[in-house]
Amino acid sequence: MIIDGMGDRPIKELGDKTPLEAAKTPNMDKMVERGICGIMDPIRPGIRAGSDTSHISILGYDPYEVYTGRGPFEAAGVGLKVLPGDIAFRCNFSTADSDGIITDRRAGRIREGTEEIAAAINGMVIADDVEVIFKESTGHRAVLVLRGEGLSDQISDADPKHEGKPPKKVVPLDDTKEAARTADILNMIVSKSYDVLKDLPINLERIEAGENPANIIIPRGAGAVPYVEPFGDKYGLKPVCIAETGLIKGIGNITGMDLIDIEGATGGIDTNLENIERGILDTAALDYDFLLINVDGADEAGHDGQLDEKIKFIEKVDDMLARLMEIEDAYFILTADHSTPISTMDHTGDPVPILINGPEVKVDDVKIFSERAAAKGGLCRIQGCNVMDILMDLMNKSTKFGA
Amino acid sequence: MIIDGMGDRPIKELGDKTPLEAAKTPNMDKMVERGICGIMDPIRPGIRAGSDTSHISILGYDPYEVYTGRGPFEAAGVGLKVLPGDIAFRCNFSTADSDGIITDRRAGRIREGTEEIAAAINGMVIADDVEVIFKESTGHRAVLVLRGEGLSDQISDADPKHEGKPPKKVVPLDDTKEAARTADILNMIVSKSYDVLKDLPINLERIEAGENPANIIIPRGAGAVPYVEPFGDKYGLKPVCIAETGLIKGIGNITGMDLIDIEGATGGIDTNLENIERGILDTAALDYDFLLINVDGADEAGHDGQLDEKIKFIEKVDDMLARLMEIEDAYFILTADHSTPISTMDHTGDPVPILINGPEVKVDDVKIFSERAAAKGGLCRIQGCNVMDILMDLMNKSTKFGA
Repeated sequence: MIIDGMGDRPIKELGDKTPLEAAKTPNMDKMVERGICGIMDPIRPGIRAGSDTSHISILGYDPYEVYTGRGPFEAAGVGLKVLPGDIAFRCNFSTADSDGIITDRRAGRIREGTEEIAAAINGMVIADDVEVIFKESTGHRAVLVLRGEGLSDQISDADPKHEGKPPKKVVPLDDTKEAARTADILNMIVSKSYDVLKDLPINLERIEAGENPANIIIPRGAGAVPYVEPFGDKYGLKPVCIAETGLIKGIGNITGMDLIDIEGATGGIDTNLENIERGILDTAALDYDFLLINVDGADEAGHDGQLDEKIKFIEKVDDMLARLMEIEDAYFILTADHSTPISTMDHTGDPVPILINGPEVKVDDVKIFSERAAAKGGLCRIQGCNVMDILMDLMNKSTKFGA
Repeated sequence: MIIDGMGDRPIKELGDKTPLEAAKTPNMDKMVERGICGIMDPIRPGIRAGSDTSHISILGYDPYEVYTGRGPFEAAGVGLKVLPGDIAFRCNFSTADSDGIITDRRAGRIREGTEEIAAAINGMVIADDVEVIFKESTGHRAVLVLRGEGLSDQISDADPKHEGKPPKKVVPLDDTKEAARTADILNMIVSKSYDVLKDLPINLERIEAGENPANIIIPRGAGAVPYVEPFGDKYGLKPVCIAETGLIKGIGNITGMDLIDIEGATGGIDTNLENIERGILDTAALDYDFLLINVDGADEAGHDGQLDEKIKFIEKVDDMLARLMEIEDAYFILTADHSTPISTMDHTGDPVPILINGPEVKVDDVKIFSERAAAKGGLCRIQGCNVMDILMDLMNKSTKFGA
């Protein structure tokens, strides 16, 4: 279970405590009493990890090899079955005027009807041997996937970044004919999207209602979908993922995990933790060997600089742990993917606390779960890439190297 | 700040304390109270680092890639602007008799007039396309740099190691024509140096005064100057270096740091710490972002097996820290580059204590600064290559990897 962004730094107004140190976490502390603790560098000491690169590392993949950019993980996160070699993009639904100028990058922050709009783009024919896959994400966001031979992710963005400009012409970033061809295809998709969308009934209705139509799509962040050995094959465990955000769902998807949807899981501090708790307990009763859980509220509170909310969210998660820690016949690893300190309002490279509960764990004498207390635990200081190896070994499922 | 060779092993006559544990270090201990501690392996656990390879590692470069031998760093340390691809050597001024036999490898431990002697060698013409650069270092030491195409560092030493022998013929160490050519050039330089120096007025004066003349130069330790990304580019910090020895100055020079000269800085236990302190405080007030400090006395005392002197030197440095630790708006890292135990009188691969002071550091409960106490600190055990990543992250100057 990864409490996204939970780690922090000492905060003056808390008497130099961190939010985790200040929070009342009786259940985490109970887990500490029966567990082994340590600190963990998600990638390496001092390296500022993203949530994606950190999860990749903790799941035992090398992020420097697997992480080709955000596009593939976002695409996988909306449920597209991406394949190695696919070129994936994050997109905005935007509004263009008849001169091709972007007048609203977020199409009036459109929230409804995007499924219908996406369906009009999905399957667009640009070249005989290239499949255009398009799907809406949340709000004005969407993903585009190109599938076919002779494509490259070495191309620039179409996003002009500011309103009042036309979409940027996509250009190849290297000398290959694959990049040149992919750039051409992208430019055609952008241009054709306007033709397809401008008179779509839902857009005409939006105009009538005084709302900006979603009449053009603007791709960015090209990334080639990497080959990722399915988690199930890599470890011989049947895996499942309960996550809130598209990014982490994408990691579950791309590593071949089943995904469990939780109603009311917003990825924010207002998320429905009761539903998440029920989802976890229900899933734990199913025929899975490995359950990846990510809750995102502490990270959101960190990014927003909301100290009280971060503490409150940690306490709410702690309350949920009262039931979760009673799941039987299981190893339970509790950690964070990175720190999102209130002071920096972004990720930092500080190590995070980690705790392992389960049979035959060498229980240490740490008494509370915090960034500082865990540093005195029996795990000492480990790296994200060690976690799965340690877990597999505890489960007596690892292979002996040597005689 | 790196206290060269400060680390040590338990010593019986100190009741199994190390010199650092036995020394009275109230200021280091005060820094510990407001800092986070750990132990650090300069390269990897158990690897016996040189001062050069350790500093390279702590500065975030891979010594196995960058370190091509001592020559380049010595040459850079005497202030030569060496360039990637230059072949650099350490040299002795020696004394040869008319039969070409070395009668004194250190030319009567010559201390004065070496600038004039070096000038007579510098610019020597051996081949049209090879520049011969020569500069005196301290005492009987000097450096030689060959600059040009078609050279190699895969050649043997000219140093016969013992008196009563002629200079060793330099031979190529591989089959390349570059190595063969460089060996030829070296042999010519050694031979021609005698011709140029034997009747130099200063040498005639030395003979008249009953001193051995510095009438031949003996090169050894060939190394090709590596390409080193300037520290300022690598980290976006404007760096400066205060060091005593040519070796560490060379590291500052080769990584593109400004060097501050300190009068009376001998690199020994008799060094002028008052001047070093003033130099540090003055430099801290200038427009730099990163200050590398190295004091060498504890290492010298270790190499000489002088227990009391090592303890005394550590105490003197501690006294200086009373002022240095008050430098504001700064992160202060205090550590050693390696251990130089009294018992071994040479470097060992023991981990060394490290301490970080500064804003938002997760202060731990370590109370004194020592090899053993630091091992219980919040940093646990890190490696030299982690130090800059951790510092950059604390300074909020690192780049996020992922989303």
